[in-house]
Amino acid sequence: MVVVNTGDDFEHLGLHISPDVDTVVYALAGISDPIQGWGIAGETWGFMRALETLGGETWFQLGDRDLAVHVERTRRLRKGETLSSITTDFCERLGIQHRIVPMSDDPVPTIVRTEEGPLSFQDYFVRRRSEPVVTGLEFSGAEQARMAEAISSAALCGSFSAIVICPSNPYLSIAPILAVPGVRSLLEQRRFPAIAVSPLVGGRALKGPAAKIMHELGKQPSALEIARFYTGLIDALVLDHADAVLADSVRSLGVTPMITNTIMREPRDRSDLAAQVVALARSAARLP
Amino acid sequence: MVVVNTGDDFEHLGLHISPDVDTVVYALAGISDPIQGWGIAGETWGFMRALETLGGETWFQLGDRDLAVHVERTRRLRKGETLSSITTDFCERLGIQHRIVPMSDDPVPTIVRTEEGPLSFQDYFVRRRSEPVVTGLEFSGAEQARMAEAISSAALCGSFSAIVICPSNPYLSIAPILAVPGVRSLLEQRRFPAIAVSPLVGGRALKGPAAKIMHELGKQPSALEIARFYTGLIDALVLDHADAVLADSVRSLGVTPMITNTIMREPRDRSDLAAQVVALARSAARLP
Repeated sequence: MVVVNTGDDFEHLGLHISPDVDTVVYALAGISDPIQGWGIAGETWGFMRALETLGGETWFQLGDRDLAVHVERTRRLRKGETLSSITTDFCERLGIQHRIVPMSDDPVPTIVRTEEGPLSFQDYFVRRRSEPVVTGLEFSGAEQARMAEAISSAALCGSFSAIVICPSNPYLSIAPILAVPGVRSLLEQRRFPAIAVSPLVGGRALKGPAAKIMHELGKQPSALEIARFYTGLIDALVLDHADAVLADSVRSLGVTPMITNTIMREPRDRSDLAAQVVALARSAARLP
Repeated sequence: MVVVNTGDDFEHLGLHISPDVDTVVYALAGISDPIQGWGIAGETWGFMRALETLGGETWFQLGDRDLAVHVERTRRLRKGETLSSITTDFCERLGIQHRIVPMSDDPVPTIVRTEEGPLSFQDYFVRRRSEPVVTGLEFSGAEQARMAEAISSAALCGSFSAIVICPSNPYLSIAPILAVPGVRSLLEQRRFPAIAVSPLVGGRALKGPAAKIMHELGKQPSALEIARFYTGLIDALVLDHADAVLADSVRSLGVTPMITNTIMREPRDRSDLAAQVVALARSAARLP
């Protein structure tokens, strides 16, 4: 089961867009654009070009095939279906074996507080290219949100054998999930191993504004700070070789460090890292 | 000013679609697909193919560029703009000199009564390919609809110098316009010439189900029946050479027949026919 942040979701051109869900769906369907890091490989842009001619908003790029997901999902949401159930159906149709679950079917839009005032997530991230200085983050509606039913029933049935927090932006992409009531305590009270993979390598994010945001929030952009962020929620943190020097400090926080290559350039890098994380989870599960 | 039927308008995939308005817009923008007779030339179909993969409805074809019109128009309609004002803006952006005006900004959806029960227009026309036997037509909401403000102010200011009813399906495409309160009396009380061009040539429609519907409604599919349909609303009817034999019968209805070539294969055929119709209107205006 892949639990995905929906704090980035927004309505655009009258369409419900779930960027993180779509990125995971496209990746696991094997159709994602490897160069852009979002969208569909070999995408066409007829819609976007025509929209520009008509004077529509073009700051958020929507490819022709990608658009089918937004239009069809919006139609089904308006009919009363949940984001979870639509996502499950799309995954089946795209031949995805995994269960992809949005963190919640309730809206939890991320508000980025900046020196220029509060910005909705996509305004900050796409329109403003993460340039404004971040002063805080707000996951609005999180307190009222229910975690997606698939997560709570898996928790109830004791179906989790491990949880892996992927190398993602802790503030923008993981914190919103942790803000959904029950998710943090699911990790705190776990009877299974939880492992995070550091998104920072040598103090830098491989992509995105994680290091910049940490700096702006007065944190040291380093894997040690990532360990601190997840303390109490994880057993182990996977660090890149570049951060081997931080191993002892991580261990002193009560988090087991594992040093390996975390930079994923080729598919082989991904499966290698995944295999190591799974092996670590298996060995951790055998610990008392 | 081109007044266009909106009886075919419908909501599809959560989008407001105005097929006749778009066909006229694309034609006058010089971007229409000359082979299909609808849509945009050189269109791409990434959206439609992806929608099919996702299990969406694909019986109504929406090209990638065409889709931009529907998405942007729907967004603006939901914000409270009128179809008229959006259409005017799109025309400007597409470099169209003409004023294209939907007959009304209020919904007047055509219901096709058939032997299989009532069908919404696109269900009948596209999904069922005009196959069910028509027993009647209903322009629902017509009584409450107001004619578009551009038409009523042109009428009020006496701006019309002639009205031409194009060679279109009288039952499906012209009758809905005539059903909007004020339009029929605008023609009946006119002080300017009105001319129709017969959509039937030798008893056949050049495209579409006009002849089939006339037959099903118990009418003779002929240009004479067209003259009867428009009696009291027009001064002259333009007939194809193939229907020259009907000239006297048309004249006996009080309608002046004009015989010419009405089959438009090449752009030249169109401008020739248009020039003749304009010349006829000019000469008719000089009559007492």
